[in-house]
Amino acid sequence: MAKVLFLPYEISAEIGKEETIIELAMRLGIHINASCGGIGACNKCKVIVESGEVLGEKIDEYYYKACSLVPKTDVVIRIPVESQVERSALLRRTRAKAFERKELLEINSPIKRLYLELSSPTIEDNTPDLERLLFALKGAGLANPDIPYALLKKLPYVLREGEFKITVSYFEDPFSQKVSLIDIESGKKEGNPIGVAMDLGTTTLQLELVDLITGETLAYTSDYNPQISYGEDVISRIEFARKKDGLKLLAERVKEKIAFLMEELVKDLEYELKDIKAFSIAGNTVMTHFFLELEPKFLREYPYVPVAKSYPVYRAGELSLPLREGVPVFLAPSVASYVGGDITAGVLASLMAKEEALTLFIDLGTNGEIVVGNKDFLMCAACSAGPAFEGGGIKCGMRATSGAIEAVNIDPITFEPMLITIGRKKPKGICGSGIISLLANLFRTGLIDKAGKFRRDLKHPRIREGEEGLEYILVFKEESATGHDIVFTENDIENLIRAKGAMFAGYQILLESVGLTLQDLERVFLAGTFGSFIDLEDAITIGLLPDLPRDKFYFLGNTSLQGAKKVLLYSEKRLELERIAQMMTHVELSNHPQYMDYYMAALFLPHTDETLFPSVKRSI
Amino acid sequence: MAKVLFLPYEISAEIGKEETIIELAMRLGIHINASCGGIGACNKCKVIVESGEVLGEKIDEYYYKACSLVPKTDVVIRIPVESQVERSALLRRTRAKAFERKELLEINSPIKRLYLELSSPTIEDNTPDLERLLFALKGAGLANPDIPYALLKKLPYVLREGEFKITVSYFEDPFSQKVSLIDIESGKKEGNPIGVAMDLGTTTLQLELVDLITGETLAYTSDYNPQISYGEDVISRIEFARKKDGLKLLAERVKEKIAFLMEELVKDLEYELKDIKAFSIAGNTVMTHFFLELEPKFLREYPYVPVAKSYPVYRAGELSLPLREGVPVFLAPSVASYVGGDITAGVLASLMAKEEALTLFIDLGTNGEIVVGNKDFLMCAACSAGPAFEGGGIKCGMRATSGAIEAVNIDPITFEPMLITIGRKKPKGICGSGIISLLANLFRTGLIDKAGKFRRDLKHPRIREGEEGLEYILVFKEESATGHDIVFTENDIENLIRAKGAMFAGYQILLESVGLTLQDLERVFLAGTFGSFIDLEDAITIGLLPDLPRDKFYFLGNTSLQGAKKVLLYSEKRLELERIAQMMTHVELSNHPQYMDYYMAALFLPHTDETLFPSVKRSI
Repeated sequence: MAKVLFLPYEISAEIGKEETIIELAMRLGIHINASCGGIGACNKCKVIVESGEVLGEKIDEYYYKACSLVPKTDVVIRIPVESQVERSALLRRTRAKAFERKELLEINSPIKRLYLELSSPTIEDNTPDLERLLFALKGAGLANPDIPYALLKKLPYVLREGEFKITVSYFEDPFSQKVSLIDIESGKKEGNPIGVAMDLGTTTLQLELVDLITGETLAYTSDYNPQISYGEDVISRIEFARKKDGLKLLAERVKEKIAFLMEELVKDLEYELKDIKAFSIAGNTVMTHFFLELEPKFLREYPYVPVAKSYPVYRAGELSLPLREGVPVFLAPSVASYVGGDITAGVLASLMAKEEALTLFIDLGTNGEIVVGNKDFLMCAACSAGPAFEGGGIKCGMRATSGAIEAVNIDPITFEPMLITIGRKKPKGICGSGIISLLANLFRTGLIDKAGKFRRDLKHPRIREGEEGLEYILVFKEESATGHDIVFTENDIENLIRAKGAMFAGYQILLESVGLTLQDLERVFLAGTFGSFIDLEDAITIGLLPDLPRDKFYFLGNTSLQGAKKVLLYSEKRLELERIAQMMTHVELSNHPQYMDYYMAALFLPHTDETLFPSVKRSI
Repeated sequence: MAKVLFLPYEISAEIGKEETIIELAMRLGIHINASCGGIGACNKCKVIVESGEVLGEKIDEYYYKACSLVPKTDVVIRIPVESQVERSALLRRTRAKAFERKELLEINSPIKRLYLELSSPTIEDNTPDLERLLFALKGAGLANPDIPYALLKKLPYVLREGEFKITVSYFEDPFSQKVSLIDIESGKKEGNPIGVAMDLGTTTLQLELVDLITGETLAYTSDYNPQISYGEDVISRIEFARKKDGLKLLAERVKEKIAFLMEELVKDLEYELKDIKAFSIAGNTVMTHFFLELEPKFLREYPYVPVAKSYPVYRAGELSLPLREGVPVFLAPSVASYVGGDITAGVLASLMAKEEALTLFIDLGTNGEIVVGNKDFLMCAACSAGPAFEGGGIKCGMRATSGAIEAVNIDPITFEPMLITIGRKKPKGICGSGIISLLANLFRTGLIDKAGKFRRDLKHPRIREGEEGLEYILVFKEESATGHDIVFTENDIENLIRAKGAMFAGYQILLESVGLTLQDLERVFLAGTFGSFIDLEDAITIGLLPDLPRDKFYFLGNTSLQGAKKVLLYSEKRLELERIAQMMTHVELSNHPQYMDYYMAALFLPHTDETLFPSVKRSI
């Protein structure tokens, strides 16, 4: 009998006679998407054969169909994220409405385009192609531009194809004023130049195709970061990168996905990949290191040193992206190992660094990054909140995909729950926003106490002793999509309280480091797509957010993507972004002498110090 | 019977039973080096199997031994230049003594090296690697350097290997003052930095390894340009480049050879390829186009437009050279399609553009390039002299390799010749310097008249009617290495007269274009290794060089290589070189209204107008 090891789950089993991989996976409870019932029609059950010999049908160079795959020897099968999760749910969620901050600024993209009619060479004037071009550029005010090698090579063809009429794309570095050519095309290009902005997230990639003249978003797409197959969080991916060619593989996989998504962005429009003239990326420090293939291990090793904070502008050709070689790739600068370009771009997009109002900027994710400040100062920190708010470390937690419970209400009398799932499907588990609601409801209804423990005196069919202590049964197995009870355990609650405690202690330390308190805050900005889905009251009830007047809170949406887009549209924004990164003082929370005290004090619902949560106190 | 096609000769034949490739080649009169008699010991009979299946022994990835090679199907066999010609002769010749012009200048290489001791990161100062480096560089006066992508990728390893002590190599662009990093190495590098200068010739590559501190040439090597296999002259190579992937192949082959020669340069010294920190190349416009993989066909097509005249500084990584990715590659600028970087570098090396003396600079080769001028002006032209002075188009002409007749004297009474061959071997043919001597002697002794025709009245065993008219038998077949008579025909003489006529008309047109005559010349500089071997009196006698006082002539040697080396050693020389290229006014001889008249007048020995050659007139 051949043995099958499933990655990334590390579950292995012997395959039965005449059993296919998808049947074995089903038997083991390993989810592989399949909408056609296993008849080989849907092509969704993609798996990668990492080692061993198989019989089966390939979908493309990388993937086999699990539904017809049979091992000939012991095999290792990797289930890619595309087969684990439904991308449609992701696309739905990330389009949520957000209060994007707008500026009254005229669009002034650093990417410019110029139409030139060069004179054709004659025997009297057989000036070489390059010098002919440089002369014309100089006439247009562009002296001594950088010429990518690939451009020089294609120059003679481009000039002659268009009878010496050309469209030149270029950008000017706002720091050095150096002009760099991006592309040269034959004839006069119609239509506006376009660029791509991307939020390079640990979990998801979100891309927008942007009109560089009107500022309009022409197309949007997103997908999971395929690096998930090699580790859900940044730490496990850094570990994976230590393997031979691991880093290279991580970089290649994400670039393949980016290429695929870019194709998707342009495909329904009258554009092609070669029309994209700039690429602006905002990602956290680790994702940016992976993307540039920079060694990430020192980020994790004491004293936690990134390879770089500000990234030089490299070209698409150097970075093996499927764009014109000369296309500049702008990467938002980081501040520290765990405060990255997604946060600097977020602060840029939020405009908080241009305004008087003292603002707390919160990006809730695996690492909750926070920034406090205004136009005069910016303090930032990463709170190691862990993945609890994304469903990680929670028994029945799951990502926010179809079938996830995203909202919960508990009747204060009957203690019966009301739930809403994504896509209105039979419930499979609970995602982040559902988890916060559930915790808040359990606390509000008194089912759990300040310490997060269930009332021991109450006999209720939904509260029972489970494997990990007491638990609340949110969905009985008869009603669940999994055939198992969906429960919420004291262990889960403890994880959540630790996570929210880390966040709250972070706010306090940051503020204290500049002699301020929560009461001084004039605004709280919630960034990230996740932020757009949580219930504000619930989040304050559990002490995840500070108890401030509700009109001080703003859901800004994906500020990382918004910031990346601003870099494409406003020449001066790259300067502003670098200035923001320079301004941001990073506080290493774990080194701060008071941090543990604040953290311990926050390990209650909503907090040990109830005066910090007056409205919660009143309502309970 | 399998058919064998030999390239580059395009001779094909059926191979006999049990016949090897070398035996077939011998039967067909195709030369393949072999010093061991075909026993498989010498490894000199290298051939490339371009198509077809064979049985045989490989020497390495590319080459088979011809002496054991048997075709299984029809095959195409390419005889590489290494097997056609003996490189040892080349190495001997190119070391000839030359009057290299020296300047009293302190060496000031644009390639600088800096030893830095960075502080090691601590938790209080975990500044990223790049920013730590940039800070230290700024402290040393180097602000905002360009960082090649490959350097950023290796930065974390290099820093930690040397405990944050590093040696940084960089260069400053003399035009923009922009500083660019070349390499970063762990610890303190001992020994001086080194660079490579190269003369990229149509026929030969000549390379020097240069100490960038002392200016000393540490090693020298040369070899044939392997592109010869695809065409002896630039025109046939441009034709070859039109084929699919032809241009790519030409670029690859020359880069492979360069890589091989660079290995050879460093191998006996305490250096490795990675120690080379700069590469300076001077080559003609076509060779430079091939090297950069720039489309060459427009150089040949009316109105003869190069892709570029001044070449941006690209990096070894971009150009796929086996050096550190960040190593800058300097290419000497061209003036026109047939006046290239070898000439601008030559003018640089000659110092003529810094001095008052009116100078005629002559580089005699396939295209005889000429420059007239001084510090105030420079006029240049390419004379289409053809390859006659290199033995091309001459019945028994050959390259200057072992067995070539390099010097000739004819007894004025007996008309018997005295000859000297390269390597003192049995004569195989006549090379350029021998051809000039022979022509001059035939003329001086009255065996030929002013028009280059043999005396019809003379009965002499060495003069006979051949296939192409009258001819002089220089070597009877009994004494020759080929088993055939070595002859010199009226046809050969006509070709030579046309070639020297083209040169002489070129001198006149160039001088006339600035209102000067030959008598105004204060100096004549003869450049090129070929120039170092010709007999001055003989060259004047045939009218190839102007009849001026002999002390006005200087043999400068390989000025192209000398110029390339100066760029490595003196920061300001790149500016000077670009200024020279700018200053040089190109005269298209074939367009000049008087050119044909001057040319026709020069089709005599030494010239129609004998007053131009007073000393020749006196001596005859």
